[in-house]
Amino acid sequence: MKQEATLQRGRNVPGLENPGRRSLLVGSAGAMAAVSLLGLTPLAKAEEPKTLPDYAAWKDRSALIVHSANTMETQRGAIGNGVLTPSDRLFVRNNLPAPPESIVADRDAWEVRIEGVKNPKTLTIGDLKKMGVTTVASVLQCSGNGRAFFPHGASGTQWSVGAAGCVMWTGVPLKDVVDTLGGPAEGTRYITSTGGEELPDGLDPKTVMVERSVPVRAMDHALLAWEMNDEPLPLTHGGPLRMVVPGYYGVNNVKYVKNVAFTEGQTTAKIQASGYRIRDIGKKGAPDQPSMWEMNVKSWVTAPLTNTASGRNMIYGVAFGGTVDLEKVDVSLDGGKTWKQARFLGPDLGPNAWRPFVMAADLSPGEYRVVSKATDVKGNSQPEGRTENERGYGHNGWNDHGVTITVG
Amino acid sequence: MKQEATLQRGRNVPGLENPGRRSLLVGSAGAMAAVSLLGLTPLAKAEEPKTLPDYAAWKDRSALIVHSANTMETQRGAIGNGVLTPSDRLFVRNNLPAPPESIVADRDAWEVRIEGVKNPKTLTIGDLKKMGVTTVASVLQCSGNGRAFFPHGASGTQWSVGAAGCVMWTGVPLKDVVDTLGGPAEGTRYITSTGGEELPDGLDPKTVMVERSVPVRAMDHALLAWEMNDEPLPLTHGGPLRMVVPGYYGVNNVKYVKNVAFTEGQTTAKIQASGYRIRDIGKKGAPDQPSMWEMNVKSWVTAPLTNTASGRNMIYGVAFGGTVDLEKVDVSLDGGKTWKQARFLGPDLGPNAWRPFVMAADLSPGEYRVVSKATDVKGNSQPEGRTENERGYGHNGWNDHGVTITVG
Repeated sequence: MKQEATLQRGRNVPGLENPGRRSLLVGSAGAMAAVSLLGLTPLAKAEEPKTLPDYAAWKDRSALIVHSANTMETQRGAIGNGVLTPSDRLFVRNNLPAPPESIVADRDAWEVRIEGVKNPKTLTIGDLKKMGVTTVASVLQCSGNGRAFFPHGASGTQWSVGAAGCVMWTGVPLKDVVDTLGGPAEGTRYITSTGGEELPDGLDPKTVMVERSVPVRAMDHALLAWEMNDEPLPLTHGGPLRMVVPGYYGVNNVKYVKNVAFTEGQTTAKIQASGYRIRDIGKKGAPDQPSMWEMNVKSWVTAPLTNTASGRNMIYGVAFGGTVDLEKVDVSLDGGKTWKQARFLGPDLGPNAWRPFVMAADLSPGEYRVVSKATDVKGNSQPEGRTENERGYGHNGWNDHGVTITVG
Repeated sequence: MKQEATLQRGRNVPGLENPGRRSLLVGSAGAMAAVSLLGLTPLAKAEEPKTLPDYAAWKDRSALIVHSANTMETQRGAIGNGVLTPSDRLFVRNNLPAPPESIVADRDAWEVRIEGVKNPKTLTIGDLKKMGVTTVASVLQCSGNGRAFFPHGASGTQWSVGAAGCVMWTGVPLKDVVDTLGGPAEGTRYITSTGGEELPDGLDPKTVMVERSVPVRAMDHALLAWEMNDEPLPLTHGGPLRMVVPGYYGVNNVKYVKNVAFTEGQTTAKIQASGYRIRDIGKKGAPDQPSMWEMNVKSWVTAPLTNTASGRNMIYGVAFGGTVDLEKVDVSLDGGKTWKQARFLGPDLGPNAWRPFVMAADLSPGEYRVVSKATDVKGNSQPEGRTENERGYGHNGWNDHGVTITVG
């Protein structure tokens, strides 16, 4: 979306561990007007510490970096070493202002229309709850997580590493719903989900609506979720009902989902047609470019991040394979010259979850460049560098995600 | 403890799903005086809805039944269907008043003495954090969970099913600590842990101190934990440091642990010598009776609990094997005449964790007795009835744990 494209443009600040926090620049006055219509006004740097917007007031402010009223990142130091991210520390990224709290007043009454099946039907959450249930742990990650590391100043929120978390989703398998309704229509190639946000007047709906198509192969794992971390899904995170596509980038997990269609083609909404497309720097987005669907293998260190005492230290981090189980994580203390395998910490919650890792290291005084590199069971491994691209999507290079620590 | 024995005496209320809530009777005036010294004053029935005590004020009041300032049970309807229990819904059971909040002001400075090893030493949590780390999901359950179902009116808190939860613990494996200190002394048969509570004046310390011995076989899995659910361990639940013995009843997981000794014999503290012993009704506790160590296989339904609409329903519950992986859970809608296998919900967090289960059922109007029966991989299965015992410990009979629902 153009509005978002000019929202926040980051400067490259070499060596800065969390560049997003210091690189907030505001776009042109014209862009600001559109932005204002959408309620996406970015907060000025001078306003820190910023308060949380009302719809996210329950979150742990101290764990978050507030980029704007619709974009809040988990502090790298608050990611922790758990197999699940507590809800109040999970990042927030809304493409449109959240609907009013009233939509979660009577959760079971929320309606979702299912189309492109043999027997199209409008179902309430109450109906869905009788059709089936599954619980899946999955990493939720914004396509632009790591954007702050792109030196060309990719536009959009300057996420460092904290636009990601691992949470537990509970809902009905999409497959159960579709089976109940007679199966998908012939020729179905995509699952297209539409969010229930109210669209602002004065803008072409196609340019602002949240409607995403994912390939039909996602049906084996997708669910319509009404709970997150064993609690009713908060409005902040898409409640009362969210399309969850485990292993896919955040944008595909459509919030307040009100329509799910099995379609031959992808939606022509801007967020799909030109948004969330990988292309060379300077290029415009287009439907023939790769869309941000399955996540790639990725990891980063979460502690220590700056200084630590000499002697024995525990290096912590998180790693995930998107849709593929992890094989291992290697950690280097010398910027990638030598590597040592870390150990996974805690139970394995499945291929879509992340795994905390830990490595003990005896450190003498000095400066260390700590980097981590995950490898999945199919042999995919994080690259050293970036795949340079206009919007700074899908960054999983291990070099940029490292930290420089001083041992004293 | 005698004080506790007269704290709350339950009447048997046949057919009452949560008898504990209505059967709070207060003991004699003499007992009350001792109880008052300990700060364990039970709250009178008339005070409901009770407020939470200060040290637990952060908990979700609506999810809890407050039996006393030191005993709070999770509502059966608030147990949920998650693989982990959110911390704010977890039950609380303190044997002594909690220490002041000041003990968690500087967590890493907390000291624990390790004795009965080749090189006894006092270690801070800071020291422990460098020795090793593990994360384990484990059911925490009070020995008296289910006490309310004993018809003889077993003394103690009248727990129904909610003195249990499944949480994630992070800390150092006890084995790593002991290895670092040269290994256990010869002849070690028990691990004896002492809590850091301040003991009240005017009472023989042995009669009130929290000091528990577990067999040395527990060393393979025990940990000294400083985190619960990826957050610093709350004071309410034993922070800054707790001995966690996965698969063992709650009392063995000593809070505010300040001393861990490898010993030939068990402690002579009353909580071990005569407390938490399985014996016939009317008998006094004694060291030759079975101690409440490893938990037995158990399950219960969590939804629906009272009324539900006819048609398709999802029956939910939780099940665990203590120290043994689960094989299956069977559910009966006719009080145990016929059974059908339920399905586990969500990832398996290991042998000490619980597993939520679900079973779809098409229900026509009428009354149903819904019971569940778990079986572990060693073939242990829940019995139908109770093992009658003086204090109402270790109840895992499936009959008492069922619910009667009306389908309309």
